[in-house]
Amino acid sequence: MTAKSQKHWTGDPADLLRVGQGFRLADVDPDAKPGYTKGKKRGAEDLSAGADELDELQERLYAQSRVDDGSPAVLLVLQGMDTAGKGGIVRHVIGAVDPQGVSLAAFKKPTPEELAHDFLWRVEKHVPQPGFIGVFDRSHYEDVLIGRVRHLADDAEIERRYGAINAFEKGLVDRGIRIVKVMLHISSDEQKARLAERLDRPDKYWKYNPADVDERALWPQYMDAYQTVFDRTSTPDAPWFVVPADRKWYARLAVQALLLDALEDIDPQWPAADFDVAVEKARLAAS
Amino acid sequence: MTAKSQKHWTGDPADLLRVGQGFRLADVDPDAKPGYTKGKKRGAEDLSAGADELDELQERLYAQSRVDDGSPAVLLVLQGMDTAGKGGIVRHVIGAVDPQGVSLAAFKKPTPEELAHDFLWRVEKHVPQPGFIGVFDRSHYEDVLIGRVRHLADDAEIERRYGAINAFEKGLVDRGIRIVKVMLHISSDEQKARLAERLDRPDKYWKYNPADVDERALWPQYMDAYQTVFDRTSTPDAPWFVVPADRKWYARLAVQALLLDALEDIDPQWPAADFDVAVEKARLAAS
Repeated sequence: MTAKSQKHWTGDPADLLRVGQGFRLADVDPDAKPGYTKGKKRGAEDLSAGADELDELQERLYAQSRVDDGSPAVLLVLQGMDTAGKGGIVRHVIGAVDPQGVSLAAFKKPTPEELAHDFLWRVEKHVPQPGFIGVFDRSHYEDVLIGRVRHLADDAEIERRYGAINAFEKGLVDRGIRIVKVMLHISSDEQKARLAERLDRPDKYWKYNPADVDERALWPQYMDAYQTVFDRTSTPDAPWFVVPADRKWYARLAVQALLLDALEDIDPQWPAADFDVAVEKARLAAS
Repeated sequence: MTAKSQKHWTGDPADLLRVGQGFRLADVDPDAKPGYTKGKKRGAEDLSAGADELDELQERLYAQSRVDDGSPAVLLVLQGMDTAGKGGIVRHVIGAVDPQGVSLAAFKKPTPEELAHDFLWRVEKHVPQPGFIGVFDRSHYEDVLIGRVRHLADDAEIERRYGAINAFEKGLVDRGIRIVKVMLHISSDEQKARLAERLDRPDKYWKYNPADVDERALWPQYMDAYQTVFDRTSTPDAPWFVVPADRKWYARLAVQALLLDALEDIDPQWPAADFDVAVEKARLAAS
């Protein structure tokens, strides 16, 4: 972590937020800001500086893929309870880079056609192409989260899915896709406040769904289902990161830092010319 | 045109740039800035102010579509010679709105599978859903531009396509899709300068293709093909706009103004609550 946008971090966010052995979700404070010493105002400045870095790294990633078919991609998987801030990450972190290099997929309630296939069928179709930053707003993990909590499949099928997910993600990593899996972790109280705001503002009514309150009643079951997800699917190839998200500005900065970390690790390079520059200059001048 | 971002326009850009009866592409100066009296610096400020307006209008458009299946959409069709600035429009105009409300399709050389179907087959798949701003970076018009200039189909087939395009677009308009068709018009000299820059900068080599110089030799044929496109497909339902694009900043501002005009005309509204707000506040408080 040497990038200038990250000078206020006391440690590598990837190390501080990664789900490792013995991780307990219940021990994470959603209001914390691990590794970041400054406040909201400095956070906004750092987010802006980081956006410029992300923008250049994304362009390099894309450029490299234009001349190399086996070029890497990045896949950001965003999970979290309702109002956790997934949309804000897309808007404020991903929104800072060129839309031409981003592929975004929002996974809603599966359609009948999707349900007729294996749960990974609809997901595979949205895996980012080489050179792209793919973003999953919800993902195949819904099938072991709401799927488990609401018993949308039998126990044996739910069990099968953890292994299927690991095999699927291993396949992506082997194809050169760097996976960044993020759970935005908010508290139940913070969710309550955010839902209340949607009920207070007529320009936010459309974001409110009465079913959200029904899901709140199942909060402990959801936290258990997330813990199981972390226990079973936080692999060395595709680890989970739990990002405290009661402070939106911190969550955005942290996810940006995780993306910068992944991209700096890929270290994409401007491709060399696959033509003779002098010859082309002469042809152009004569045209 | 009452929006505050448009106060420096001397007239409605949509009226000034629309291709109407008797339009002659040869009469358009690519270096002009019709309707805009100020310079580049003020242009950047206006673009920034317009971005905020576009952002809110896009969110309203999207919100409205969440409760109304037959809700409108916007489709921006971008055409122009190589280096005309299509990518810059996507990045600097479209990039200012929430990526969650944008669907972007870049049409490259057709694949064998695409060529085995009618030329509109691949296009229909990318028509924006209700609530979205769709962007076509190149489009079905390539099939009567390079298709005509390079004789990629026989004359009868090229002739057939103009009518097929008009019928296709009429169908989109009838489905509530507002189509904004833009040709970014640069001069051959400006293209030469932009290609030369790509040959001067190693971080731009990847954008250069030797075939671009071959296409330059066919400039007059392309301008003729564009003139025919305007004559045959600038309909009242889906008119063309020719935007002088030698000044990138002007082209961006003008395309933004055309989008604002379309969205202000749609005038999307925040949806009313489809639940009882007081009841939901009570349920939430008790949760």
